[in-house]
Amino acid sequence: MSNIDNIREHLDLMHRDLLREELNHLSLSEMLDLWQEMGEDEAMEIFLLLQLDQKVELITHLSEAEQEWLLKSLSLEKIRELLDEIEPDDLADIIQAVSHDVRSSVWKSLSEEARRETQFLLKFDSDDAAGLMTPRYIALRSNITVEQAIHFIRQGVDDIETIYYVYVVDQLQRIQGVISLREILFSNNSEVIGSKMSTNVISVQEDTDQEEVARILEDYDFIALPVTDRYNRLLGIITFDDVIDVIREEQTEDIYKMGAMDGSSDIYLETGIFRLLKKRIPWLILLLLTGTITTNVLALTDDILSAAAFLVLFIPVITQTGGNSGTQSSTLMIRGIAMGHVDFADIGKVVLKEFLVGVFMGVILGGVIILRSVYLPPGIAWYEGLVIGLSLIFVVLFSTIIGAVAPLLIHKLGWDPTVIAAPLMSTVIDVTGLSIYTFTAKMLLGL
Amino acid sequence: MSNIDNIREHLDLMHRDLLREELNHLSLSEMLDLWQEMGEDEAMEIFLLLQLDQKVELITHLSEAEQEWLLKSLSLEKIRELLDEIEPDDLADIIQAVSHDVRSSVWKSLSEEARRETQFLLKFDSDDAAGLMTPRYIALRSNITVEQAIHFIRQGVDDIETIYYVYVVDQLQRIQGVISLREILFSNNSEVIGSKMSTNVISVQEDTDQEEVARILEDYDFIALPVTDRYNRLLGIITFDDVIDVIREEQTEDIYKMGAMDGSSDIYLETGIFRLLKKRIPWLILLLLTGTITTNVLALTDDILSAAAFLVLFIPVITQTGGNSGTQSSTLMIRGIAMGHVDFADIGKVVLKEFLVGVFMGVILGGVIILRSVYLPPGIAWYEGLVIGLSLIFVVLFSTIIGAVAPLLIHKLGWDPTVIAAPLMSTVIDVTGLSIYTFTAKMLLGL
Repeated sequence: MSNIDNIREHLDLMHRDLLREELNHLSLSEMLDLWQEMGEDEAMEIFLLLQLDQKVELITHLSEAEQEWLLKSLSLEKIRELLDEIEPDDLADIIQAVSHDVRSSVWKSLSEEARRETQFLLKFDSDDAAGLMTPRYIALRSNITVEQAIHFIRQGVDDIETIYYVYVVDQLQRIQGVISLREILFSNNSEVIGSKMSTNVISVQEDTDQEEVARILEDYDFIALPVTDRYNRLLGIITFDDVIDVIREEQTEDIYKMGAMDGSSDIYLETGIFRLLKKRIPWLILLLLTGTITTNVLALTDDILSAAAFLVLFIPVITQTGGNSGTQSSTLMIRGIAMGHVDFADIGKVVLKEFLVGVFMGVILGGVIILRSVYLPPGIAWYEGLVIGLSLIFVVLFSTIIGAVAPLLIHKLGWDPTVIAAPLMSTVIDVTGLSIYTFTAKMLLGL
Repeated sequence: MSNIDNIREHLDLMHRDLLREELNHLSLSEMLDLWQEMGEDEAMEIFLLLQLDQKVELITHLSEAEQEWLLKSLSLEKIRELLDEIEPDDLADIIQAVSHDVRSSVWKSLSEEARRETQFLLKFDSDDAAGLMTPRYIALRSNITVEQAIHFIRQGVDDIETIYYVYVVDQLQRIQGVISLREILFSNNSEVIGSKMSTNVISVQEDTDQEEVARILEDYDFIALPVTDRYNRLLGIITFDDVIDVIREEQTEDIYKMGAMDGSSDIYLETGIFRLLKKRIPWLILLLLTGTITTNVLALTDDILSAAAFLVLFIPVITQTGGNSGTQSSTLMIRGIAMGHVDFADIGKVVLKEFLVGVFMGVILGGVIILRSVYLPPGIAWYEGLVIGLSLIFVVLFSTIIGAVAPLLIHKLGWDPTVIAAPLMSTVIDVTGLSIYTFTAKMLLGL
């Protein structure tokens, strides 16, 4: 951070030249750190002193609200200069993010070509393959030679996103093959591209879901994937860096869903109170309402609880431990489903495994709770401890199995187990856990 | 999957040629699917019919147990053929994964060069930058021309992992600069590499943590990152595909930790009962033991609970709702910390925001529980509902703030908030939630 301290000092002392010098060496993450620490006026002053490629890097990595603010504050001339350098896929994202006013001034500042490219990209859903692609790739015909191809590439269309794969298309723009720059360079000058290219092209359709795109690129370790329409015509390419962004975004969404929240990935400090509320309160209300079924279970077993008052003390322990064991097995299933390692067809194996694991865990936890509650305060009697321990075995076993089966079933029904499993499970486990608890106690105590 | 059905049929009918033809078109994910469905004999038969590059792709993507089995079952000659084609970083991973016996037969089958490269890689911790790198990169001196560089690259050392970045080093192997193949190709033949290269090289140290490596590669959208020792000597490079694997692995670990389990990322169906137990039971015991503090809280407030029996019915609702609101704010913080968006310095802003969100959520949830429990069974009295509703406001407010503050504090102390936050928080929230609950009830009911 000493970089940032230097910058602060130069800014305070108005050393413009030193400041510019210092800023030119900043990496993206340093720029983002600096941006977060600065007030609006400082941030704008800094932004104007950055080099053009730094500006482009920074603006494409800012949050939507910051992009909006920046584009609103810059002069039309500055905006034009900036937009000329931004890749069309990033441009399409910015245009979708900003408000109507900013959008129309951005639109006016675009060159004819950029407007055409962006318009083309805006047709597609941003969660689909086509929403991630750039139309700037290299395509050649199959009958040219390696030497011609190298010459063509070196002539260098400068705004191509990657030159490391070259796609071969026919007159109708249909993909015929693909060849990496590496393969081109390793071939003899006189060879024909068509004879060296791979004709078994791995591509995605324009409407392939972005998670599927990520999995394919990962499986093949490709730098880029071509996107085609249903006539196999090449529309654009998706590069690995955009796929990494997708993986990160999906990761945040999954973690939020596991934390019982709406999955959209916002940046916390920039999210308003009401947006946070909207993200959180629906789940809390749903969980509260389903959770209140436990009040009915407890009301029904009122007589048992008053006949054996020690049972009340262990209500939170029973529901917690049931919840924890269920969360473990459901987490294993949810992750296994997401990674493609488990599905509904494996339910037999899963139930057997969870039954065995559940029995072991139940016996161990039951033993622990007996020793803990008899020998330490509240120091209940041995037979009371036995009641608690035995009930806990059944609760753990049941929760473990339900926790594993529910996500498999939900996935089989076509829903997202990450979202549905948590509320459903916590209610089912609490309600049945408490029923198992009071029923076991009733039997053992002869009530 | 029709591919796989065909393969099955050919296998049954012993159509070896058709089978080989069909297999040659399989992608990695199809091979993995097939592998999972086949018995051991079938799997081995299929494996032997694959092309060499398919074999290499498949074996490097199998689980540790499957690699062990495969290497044990193959002849020494087959192993040698296979190992010759595997990249040294993948080789080092396999060698670390297999048992002692298999390791020594693998070791004997390695070529002199592969043995030297692998030995070099095995020195490093597999979670560090050096554990991800390959020593196969292109390095040049700064005084050669663009034409010479292109000639050198085209001579083509075939087993280089990426030719798309060229590193410039001095006589002592210290990094002087980096230049992409794209920049080389876009330059004139007569230009000198030293004048075109970037001297501001972004690199990582051999002991940089792999998560940090991932963040740096993501920030810069690089295809590869150089790894250096503390004298700035180039040791190897890390390519984007290995970084994607790191991101996936860390994702699984984080999700497991949130599900209160040990974070190591195994494949569920291949994990034995005792390994699953070991992953799960320590957390359950810890959570159970800390959770039992609630029995002491309830024992202390025994008189209040027996004086107002309706309070018992709502114990699970109070602890659940407190837990859920706390989980939400802690999830937001844990993710924010992981993504570098929030840290301890923001604690003031966070507490203010969570206070406001907590008040709104508390009031809404309090209102919901009053209406729900008065108008629906168990149908408690209005003043009883009021007691529950008011307590819930305080519990939600408290849990929301604690849920946000705990991860920030834990992170500040240098621990991993993902692991520690869950058990700590659920106990703190349950214990204080129940105390707030009984205390509020005592006040309101004048007990």
